[in-house]
Amino acid sequence: MARMDAVSKQTAAKIEKLAEAVMRTVKGGNNPFVEIPIRSLANVRWSEKKRLVELGNQRQKRYFFNVSMAKKFMQTFLVSDACKELVESGKTTSIRDLYYVTKHTIGDTKQNTFEEQDESDPIIEDLEVALDSLREELHLFASRKGSMVGPITIRDSGDTIDLRRMGSGGWAVPSIVEENIIQFVRHEAKYILLIEKDAVWTRFNEDKFWKRERCIILQGGGQPPRGVRRLVQRLHSELKLPVYVLVDNDPWGFYIYSVMKQGSINLAYESMRMAVPDARFVGLSSFDKQKYKLPDNVAIKMDDGDNARAKQMLAYPWFKHAKWQREIAEMVSSGMKYELEALSRRGISFITEEYLPKKLKDRDWLE
Amino acid sequence: MARMDAVSKQTAAKIEKLAEAVMRTVKGGNNPFVEIPIRSLANVRWSEKKRLVELGNQRQKRYFFNVSMAKKFMQTFLVSDACKELVESGKTTSIRDLYYVTKHTIGDTKQNTFEEQDESDPIIEDLEVALDSLREELHLFASRKGSMVGPITIRDSGDTIDLRRMGSGGWAVPSIVEENIIQFVRHEAKYILLIEKDAVWTRFNEDKFWKRERCIILQGGGQPPRGVRRLVQRLHSELKLPVYVLVDNDPWGFYIYSVMKQGSINLAYESMRMAVPDARFVGLSSFDKQKYKLPDNVAIKMDDGDNARAKQMLAYPWFKHAKWQREIAEMVSSGMKYELEALSRRGISFITEEYLPKKLKDRDWLE
Repeated sequence: MARMDAVSKQTAAKIEKLAEAVMRTVKGGNNPFVEIPIRSLANVRWSEKKRLVELGNQRQKRYFFNVSMAKKFMQTFLVSDACKELVESGKTTSIRDLYYVTKHTIGDTKQNTFEEQDESDPIIEDLEVALDSLREELHLFASRKGSMVGPITIRDSGDTIDLRRMGSGGWAVPSIVEENIIQFVRHEAKYILLIEKDAVWTRFNEDKFWKRERCIILQGGGQPPRGVRRLVQRLHSELKLPVYVLVDNDPWGFYIYSVMKQGSINLAYESMRMAVPDARFVGLSSFDKQKYKLPDNVAIKMDDGDNARAKQMLAYPWFKHAKWQREIAEMVSSGMKYELEALSRRGISFITEEYLPKKLKDRDWLE
Repeated sequence: MARMDAVSKQTAAKIEKLAEAVMRTVKGGNNPFVEIPIRSLANVRWSEKKRLVELGNQRQKRYFFNVSMAKKFMQTFLVSDACKELVESGKTTSIRDLYYVTKHTIGDTKQNTFEEQDESDPIIEDLEVALDSLREELHLFASRKGSMVGPITIRDSGDTIDLRRMGSGGWAVPSIVEENIIQFVRHEAKYILLIEKDAVWTRFNEDKFWKRERCIILQGGGQPPRGVRRLVQRLHSELKLPVYVLVDNDPWGFYIYSVMKQGSINLAYESMRMAVPDARFVGLSSFDKQKYKLPDNVAIKMDDGDNARAKQMLAYPWFKHAKWQREIAEMVSSGMKYELEALSRRGISFITEEYLPKKLKDRDWLE
């Protein structure tokens, strides 16, 4: 067994506790169960106080001696056992891998423990909520995307990395960025800028915007993957740095901002550790067409999907503020959307030299 | 004008030459034209000698005074002018950005120079073949994916980066990796390992396979983007390192290998600088099920698309070798495919500790 760090010890202890409770019940002659918070929409709510999408208090008991629950009960322990092994060995793996690792044919039957990954994935989510551990703490990683540079030195798995000297490529953000793996050593950053598109990030890096403005720039290739979201949240909460989100002027861009800020309904149980309620929107606003003199021919017509999505967002409690209502209403009534790249019509460095500096100076953001 | 490096000077000179030839024709009272190699399938061929998919010799003249060609002629010069500006200013940008930069409404008409990006993209490809310059040399980048670590120190845009100390994340591979941006400083690598999946790459990095085996490991998140392919090609040709490709046992994995090795039909004009004919396939073979004792339940049934794709590949000239025919025939007749992750059934580090070391030791690869 590898020597475990504090986080891993805690996670392993939680898994043990879960198993011990079951064993005690069995010894007491009772039907063993695991208690799991319910992850359905009915148990998701918007917390006005925390400004987060979060899970409610409803819980479900999963019994072993119950025809409809027995298989899931067994699966829960297969997965938790595999995770405990991962945690104790100091290794991490993908949820796809975990599916293969835990897939067995049961005895002489033709029954498999799991038929497809869509059976093991929800069990992982169950375990995350039951243990109140992120899957990253269970040593499971998701797919990785994204890169980061800026005036900060980090430690990653024992290597000290100066993100001021990462050339055009940047440091590739891994999926697991928990504090046992990534530590922040020192920095001179004033804020964090999360950029939706890799192409726009490349512009900001090439123009050394991060150096001039003293900020950390990250991109997650569209909707940021878990690693990028969690890292932004850690940088924000541990280094007390404000977060600005730069996205397209379209419902998808607004949605990316929304997930970064409030969390998502699907992953409500993780909002506490993934979301940044104070995040500010510096993405292209529906009113920027006038403000930044964009010609008509760079507008893109919204399609039916865009319109439906935008109208949905009008109803989100966290978009209830008059400024956001006005913003979304303008998008819907104009029927037009704009990509960040449209700003290049004013020059390819317009976005780094004029657009964003002006937005920040005028405090012209949405919250 | 920024001071230009040698590569950029050469590219700018090529663009000028193209324009000057046109001007000469105009002054001579003739109908100006640009001559562009034809990129259609009919002009793509397999070169047995170079072992590459390459463009043939057919060329097309695009005239200015020709109703059907005038718009494209104008577009060609708009794009080449924008590229010249990029090259001279030392900036790079995305092809999406270039579309916006060159999109204008013509005079008082309602005509735009470009309506959609699908009009400007082919013009870029025309220009690449006409100038014999990669789009990266025209300072245009594609979307970026992928990461790299290994016993090598590189310089990227003036920063010296030690890829032996990149933690769990790695260096994010940029889209443009031409020698004016990326240089190889020193290395102790014995070979290059290109891994299809980011999750598998993470396993190899975590297990420090690259340190133990002295190799450079790269991943491109599925089908590698241009930056990763070009970088592998440069590492191979400049450092004389063999290239091994680790992909799934499915038609898609074979296709990824095929593109890395021979180039693709769509981008035949770039094979010379993107493909590595000597690349070796160490991906999961259709016969590895037996060799590595994989249980039946990790096999995945091929669907109709898989079968059609596999049969197409049987006809590729570069898969004509008996070993490849046998390989693909076995896949088709078994009707089963296997992911690399299936090896985790034998333990999550089986792939780094047993599978690949044995393959390399036994020289059990396909070429």
